[in-house]
Amino acid sequence: MELLKARILKDGKALDGNIIKVDSFLNHQIDPYLLDEIGKEFYELFRSGNVTKVLTIESSGIAIGVFAAKYLGVPLVFAKKTMSLNIDDNVYTSVVHSYTKKTLYDVKVSKDYLTESDNILIVDDFLANGQAALGLVNIVKEAGARLEGIGIVIEKGFQDGGRLLRSMGIRVESLAIISQMKNGEIFF
Amino acid sequence: MELLKARILKDGKALDGNIIKVDSFLNHQIDPYLLDEIGKEFYELFRSGNVTKVLTIESSGIAIGVFAAKYLGVPLVFAKKTMSLNIDDNVYTSVVHSYTKKTLYDVKVSKDYLTESDNILIVDDFLANGQAALGLVNIVKEAGARLEGIGIVIEKGFQDGGRLLRSMGIRVESLAIISQMKNGEIFF
Repeated sequence: MELLKARILKDGKALDGNIIKVDSFLNHQIDPYLLDEIGKEFYELFRSGNVTKVLTIESSGIAIGVFAAKYLGVPLVFAKKTMSLNIDDNVYTSVVHSYTKKTLYDVKVSKDYLTESDNILIVDDFLANGQAALGLVNIVKEAGARLEGIGIVIEKGFQDGGRLLRSMGIRVESLAIISQMKNGEIFF
Repeated sequence: MELLKARILKDGKALDGNIIKVDSFLNHQIDPYLLDEIGKEFYELFRSGNVTKVLTIESSGIAIGVFAAKYLGVPLVFAKKTMSLNIDDNVYTSVVHSYTKKTLYDVKVSKDYLTESDNILIVDDFLANGQAALGLVNIVKEAGARLEGIGIVIEKGFQDGGRLLRSMGIRVESLAIISQMKNGEIFF
């Protein structure tokens, strides 16, 4: 997606440790026009698939997911990272290892909002090691739902997540794949 | 907002302890059409105010804020509840007491995304005790920015938050104000 790549080159920052900072438009400050275009792009990619729900994970997936869901004409469900008192025990759970935050966390979705008749599109802002996406894939499986595919905004092509998910036969569509980050420069 | 009130009556659940559960369309599963309409409503209410940014708090404020921001033609900034490794120490911080989760948490916004030239619209899904909103108000003050007002989706009119914020001279617009919850029934 050229609009996205141009924005990453303009406002993204390649930091040490293969961290790319896109806080200024994607996951702290959010450009709603760009996110709307991203939602439209996921719609174009997955419109033929009879998606019944979009699934993402709090927090940075939400703004992306809600536009994709709007264009697809379906609800968005976002997985929660900790147990909230307002959700009962009626949940699907998966454990995720976060490399960035160096911690394990639980991902939870209420059983009320994922069923075996669902056909799910997972979306997220980043794909690196693929652990968060895998957590969501496991929840889709647990629910007995079908997985239509995964839509990613920025994939770090030099990390293993994309290969891992695609080797499982999952359709993964990334709008920008970063091949390399070197001396503060970003390459697609 | 009649569309919202009708949806609350249809799908909201009044639970013990004055908890209203709107997980099925507002803060776990999300109806993007309703949220789009809510964003439009906040735009109508605050369009004359020269808002430069919408500010909300993760996670359930994000989907609301991104539509409001889109209609207002400005960025959305969402405050984070914990320190992420990807944000530097260059942050505004406020401490919030969560009655629901019975805990204290830090709310943080990068100094890069709030400045004294900003005019801020705060939005959130709920207003009850007003602690989360107050945390955001404090961050706006800390940044030296102007506060245009606060847009709330559901206010619990029988709790103190609305009175507290309005007594500070803040313009608070709630799209649905619940006056009472009794025997599982919701009254506006």
